Amino acid sequence: MASVLAVGSASMSAHADEGMWQPHQLQEISGKLKQAGLELDPTQMENLDQFPMNAIISLGGCTASFLSEQGLVVTNHHCAYGSIQYNSTEEKNLLEQGFVAKSLSEELQAAPGSRVYVTESLTKVTDKVTGSISSLTQGKAYFDAIEKNQKALVAECETSQDYRCEVFSFHGGLEYFLIKQLAIRDVRLVYAPPSSIGKFGGDTDNWMWPRHTGDWSFYRAYVNKDGQPADYSKDNVPFKPKAFLKVNANGVEENDYVMVLGYPGRTNRYRTVEDVKNQFTWVYPTAKRYREEYIDVIKNTAPDQSEARIKYESTLAGLANYAKNYGSMVESFNKGDMLKRKEKELAALKAWINASKKRQRQYGKTLAELDKLIAQGQSHQARDLILAYIARTNMYSVAKRLYRLAHEKNKPDAERKKGYQERDMNRFTQAMKRVNRRYDATVDKAVLAHFIAQYAQFPAEQRNPVFDEFFGLSNNSNKEFDAKKLAAKLDKMHSNTELDQEAVRLAWMKKSVEEFKASDDPYIQFAVSQYEHDQKLETQSEELTGQLAQIRPQYMAAMIAFKQSKGEPVYADANSSLRITYGNVKGYSPQDGITATPFTTLEGMLAKYVAGDHEFDLFDNIRTAIKNKNYGAYYRERLGSVPVNYLSTLDITGGNSGSPTLNGKGEFVGLAFDGVYESIIGDWDYDAKLNRAIHTSAPFMLWTMENVDNAQNIVDELTIVK
Amino acid sequence: MASVLAVGSASMSAHADEGMWQPHQLQEISGKLKQAGLELDPTQMENLDQFPMNAIISLGGCTASFLSEQGLVVTNHHCAYGSIQYNSTEEKNLLEQGFVAKSLSEELQAAPGSRVYVTESLTKVTDKVTGSISSLTQGKAYFDAIEKNQKALVAECETSQDYRCEVFSFHGGLEYFLIKQLAIRDVRLVYAPPSSIGKFGGDTDNWMWPRHTGDWSFYRAYVNKDGQPADYSKDNVPFKPKAFLKVNANGVEENDYVMVLGYPGRTNRYRTVEDVKNQFTWVYPTAKRYREEYIDVIKNTAPDQSEARIKYESTLAGLANYAKNYGSMVESFNKGDMLKRKEKELAALKAWINASKKRQRQYGKTLAELDKLIAQGQSHQARDLILAYIARTNMYSVAKRLYRLAHEKNKPDAERKKGYQERDMNRFTQAMKRVNRRYDATVDKAVLAHFIAQYAQFPAEQRNPVFDEFFGLSNNSNKEFDAKKLAAKLDKMHSNTELDQEAVRLAWMKKSVEEFKASDDPYIQFAVSQYEHDQKLETQSEELTGQLAQIRPQYMAAMIAFKQSKGEPVYADANSSLRITYGNVKGYSPQDGITATPFTTLEGMLAKYVAGDHEFDLFDNIRTAIKNKNYGAYYRERLGSVPVNYLSTLDITGGNSGSPTLNGKGEFVGLAFDGVYESIIGDWDYDAKLNRAIHTSAPFMLWTMENVDNAQNIVDELTIVK
Repeated sequence: MASVLAVGSASMSAHADEGMWQPHQLQEISGKLKQAGLELDPTQMENLDQFPMNAIISLGGCTASFLSEQGLVVTNHHCAYGSIQYNSTEEKNLLEQGFVAKSLSEELQAAPGSRVYVTESLTKVTDKVTGSISSLTQGKAYFDAIEKNQKALVAECETSQDYRCEVFSFHGGLEYFLIKQLAIRDVRLVYAPPSSIGKFGGDTDNWMWPRHTGDWSFYRAYVNKDGQPADYSKDNVPFKPKAFLKVNANGVEENDYVMVLGYPGRTNRYRTVEDVKNQFTWVYPTAKRYREEYIDVIKNTAPDQSEARIKYESTLAGLANYAKNYGSMVESFNKGDMLKRKEKELAALKAWINASKKRQRQYGKTLAELDKLIAQGQSHQARDLILAYIARTNMYSVAKRLYRLAHEKNKPDAERKKGYQERDMNRFTQAMKRVNRRYDATVDKAVLAHFIAQYAQFPAEQRNPVFDEFFGLSNNSNKEFDAKKLAAKLDKMHSNTELDQEAVRLAWMKKSVEEFKASDDPYIQFAVSQYEHDQKLETQSEELTGQLAQIRPQYMAAMIAFKQSKGEPVYADANSSLRITYGNVKGYSPQDGITATPFTTLEGMLAKYVAGDHEFDLFDNIRTAIKNKNYGAYYRERLGSVPVNYLSTLDITGGNSGSPTLNGKGEFVGLAFDGVYESIIGDWDYDAKLNRAIHTSAPFMLWTMENVDNAQNIVDELTIVK
Repeated sequence: MASVLAVGSASMSAHADEGMWQPHQLQEISGKLKQAGLELDPTQMENLDQFPMNAIISLGGCTASFLSEQGLVVTNHHCAYGSIQYNSTEEKNLLEQGFVAKSLSEELQAAPGSRVYVTESLTKVTDKVTGSISSLTQGKAYFDAIEKNQKALVAECETSQDYRCEVFSFHGGLEYFLIKQLAIRDVRLVYAPPSSIGKFGGDTDNWMWPRHTGDWSFYRAYVNKDGQPADYSKDNVPFKPKAFLKVNANGVEENDYVMVLGYPGRTNRYRTVEDVKNQFTWVYPTAKRYREEYIDVIKNTAPDQSEARIKYESTLAGLANYAKNYGSMVESFNKGDMLKRKEKELAALKAWINASKKRQRQYGKTLAELDKLIAQGQSHQARDLILAYIARTNMYSVAKRLYRLAHEKNKPDAERKKGYQERDMNRFTQAMKRVNRRYDATVDKAVLAHFIAQYAQFPAEQRNPVFDEFFGLSNNSNKEFDAKKLAAKLDKMHSNTELDQEAVRLAWMKKSVEEFKASDDPYIQFAVSQYEHDQKLETQSEELTGQLAQIRPQYMAAMIAFKQSKGEPVYADANSSLRITYGNVKGYSPQDGITATPFTTLEGMLAKYVAGDHEFDLFDNIRTAIKNKNYGAYYRERLGSVPVNYLSTLDITGGNSGSPTLNGKGEFVGLAFDGVYESIIGDWDYDAKLNRAIHTSAPFMLWTMENVDNAQNIVDELTIVK
């Protein structure tokens, strides 16, 4: 079977800046990297133990990097947000005011569960995951076998709580890698700018250019005196990483080589035509509508400034964030020609397969089989999507998770579902503790009522009978839906449930399946009533996933071989594993007659200032510094100011948040924190003309810490080059 | 007294592209013009009888130009809109479908009242207007004297209906010019693109960049066989202008010299600090609010698609247009530093005056006196503004105008108010005929009720007692306003008035004051009841205007002398007289991190296309031509397409609509039709960084006529250069 490694020397003309490369691929594309401006030795970059790779760390969901030998960690403000919020009180609101620890002793414990993950090794384990599975094993059995093998590898690897291991699937299961990370669990907050800098522009500017967000914060990783991860203790000492990044105070200029090292979450660059069509013409438009409705219901139920509204602000932000995301997806899809290109590629792939008898034998049926499975997965998607939104509501999701836990606990730890193993219990407990911060009964009821009313209009074949039964819904779509009856039922459920109490939830974590079955809590009863049928659906879904896990690698193998035949490089879809993307500092044209220039400046930030606005306010100190042109050492003559944010062609996605941006020498020149609106569709399709990452510039970070936030001690800890 | 002519040779560094120059000033700024790229002889351009000036014509409100020796006139689509609408029927909707006359015989009569005005002479008449007025004449008497002298000049000049003459005041009354225009009254529609091209982008794109509007149409001027203006007749022949413009098919490139010759309406570049403050912090915000309320009332009263709504669509468009305009004014004012610069200039002017005893004697009291008069004018502005909006309503305005006419007719023609003289009666009649097209009783009542309710909250000193009396309003603001009573009164007035009938209105045009007084038509009664008091207010206003007409010239003389002392050029505020503005094709940065590039392309137009949308629809033929890259001779390599619209630094305003844009050789390279959002405030303050005019490109016009609209015969009539 063709390997992705054999691509290297081929020409890579198509999209120079597309690609999220695995470290071991760098050597293979070294010519291109050097040509683009990389001065480091690509071979050195493959080594996770050395500079610069050892300086790149994961926070789980976000990326970060070491900026000093004292374990100083830089990431996005939005990645440290939970920890800043956790340390905020009404009297001392760090989110609002920002925070600077003037010495180690002033540093604050990060939010519970915060971790710094330092990748120590990366081992190819394809053989161990799929090699031993009999070719007769199919569907759900294949799914279970893979899951079992992966869990065994993880269990063997996680020798103590100091390590976190995970098996990552590449190319839809064509390859598997085991990644072992040191998990540092004493993490402290060192610095955060006020949100008026760190979150400047708020939701309005999210995914937008021009941008002026100072999206960075500092953590520090602590270990015990032996250098091992340990629970928080005053005796712990800063972790000494094997490598850290120097900071280039000049930042970057237009067209400069830049690269981002980080942990991109998920892309879908190799989906089939039918899959893409369904996603952009049904899934995204529908999910966008559901989110907008969800938002409307919350807003209509919880008036602005009300206590209930405050509880749902972060839910609203999340809903709005992806409603905007999906809107951009659909917009870009309709404007662009991705589908046509996909169709062309598919036709070419088919022609290439058909041109050789050997290839016909090898891949001849793969495409049709894959599409058949994909269609099968879509057959109940309307039902699945609306029930998924219903299952997002507070009490229902809590009850479901607790009852699932009771079942999973009956199994040996290794056989439990992900998320319900012992290693997950800390996070599980935290989540159960947090519920009331984001819960209001009236809102929860209103959302449920809204979506159940819509679900009740679905035709019989798209219904879930046990769900209908529980709520007394008729699946005869001619029969009028009785909204009053449902409202009365929900009223009763919310009045009588005790899951809105933290202690009750924690107590249920310890209870047995039988105790759940005997409970008269209406939400526990609801969860119990759905469980068996949900399991049936899950099994069906795993059967399908297992079948896909056998077909998709064949499809990818065909695709890789095809692309290799044309000399095109192949990188795997993002999967939260460590990747490198490289490119240039560069603007773009979002629209005919408009150019986005690659830098924004302090003056542009000030021009957006709106006194007292929750998104565009700025404190006096920064406004005065800008008005007085107090640029310090960070003045850039070509801009006539200090660069705040900049654009690059880098190929990033969610999970890259907090990733350091490095120049050709491997010096830190900023932090990736967002992409532009037109590149949201980049998760499916990289467009060299429109795909742009947004970075907070290193000079702006230094300028702010020196001139605005009185954080000279942090600047002094950095190794600054000019 | 200092003359504006003495400026020429001084350095003009400040804003190279600012200025709406009078033809006679061109010789004085010839060095600068040549340096900027003018290849024509500036002296030649002063001559209204020659190329290119003789090719520039006015349509009254819009500018146009001759493009052939057969009297072919090009102007904006939005300037010919009324004529296209006038010739549209349900079966043959020219607005929607566009129109091409394939021969002279197919040309259609323009809307009644359409005129082509060819400027024949321009005479300085300052002495005749103000020279003979005794220095003892003050206030209202001064106002009357000026008005009388102007009317006498006009009467003497307008030897027949073939001529239209007007006296224009420059620099607030420092200079007066008499302009004599040939008035051609047989005007015919030759060509209009479909509105989907001519109005592409609609209100959404109005004042916006990027822009893709094909805003042009063609008229033809006809005269009798003797070459004299005449009523429409089949025997009339095309007018032969002394000059017409050649069309450059290549259009322009970035940084090219361009100039616009035309009739800019009104600017306020020399207002005082206090005047500016009041305008931007009170007048614009208040007027914006009134317009938005006006819109809301119409929309709430006349549902979408209703017959009433259709009647008010153009009223709504006008209200929205200026609500947006005022919004931009306020936004730019708040963001920018105009006020600070004005304050600085004022301080410098004062210092300059105080530095010389002679100047102290001459101008020492001028500023204070001017500000005193301006403050006096503002003292009742709240009352005046809301009553002005009330007076915009249909029946009230009709009744007021008719009753005023009855009074004016008692005077000799020369003494009548402007708008009520014999020369105005054609327009007056047309206006009275048009009323019902834009009138619905329910809407008219609702608007009146809305604004009268607001007016009723005003304090006693801001009230109009006869208005209060008529509607039975109490001016005690503590007393609750009785909305029901008012509604009942308006119901009765609208039920009983007969002014909603065309014949009745036309009949009232002939009736005497006594007949009005004896009428029991409620709107006639309303008008009669207000007349005397309104006259008193008008007299007060004219007293003030007269005083201002004496002070403002002194202020402008001081300002001109001051600016001359610094070597700065001085041009007069726009006043609908012929001007020249020159500059370059150039983009701008509307915001930090964004550049507006100077050209848009066919592909950008297609990218905006939304099927069936009333603003962004496009016919198949143009979409196909673009998709097929059927660029013909108009392909521009640097753009990779045909330029649709472009930006320039030209200093234009309303009235410049339809103005030809000329290159350095005087060749036609497009039509000015709008300014960008950031330059709306340009009427008060030209900002070289933000002030941009928008032009439809000549290549796009030719491309469309050749490749889309099947109008090759018109292209063939043009003299095309490459």
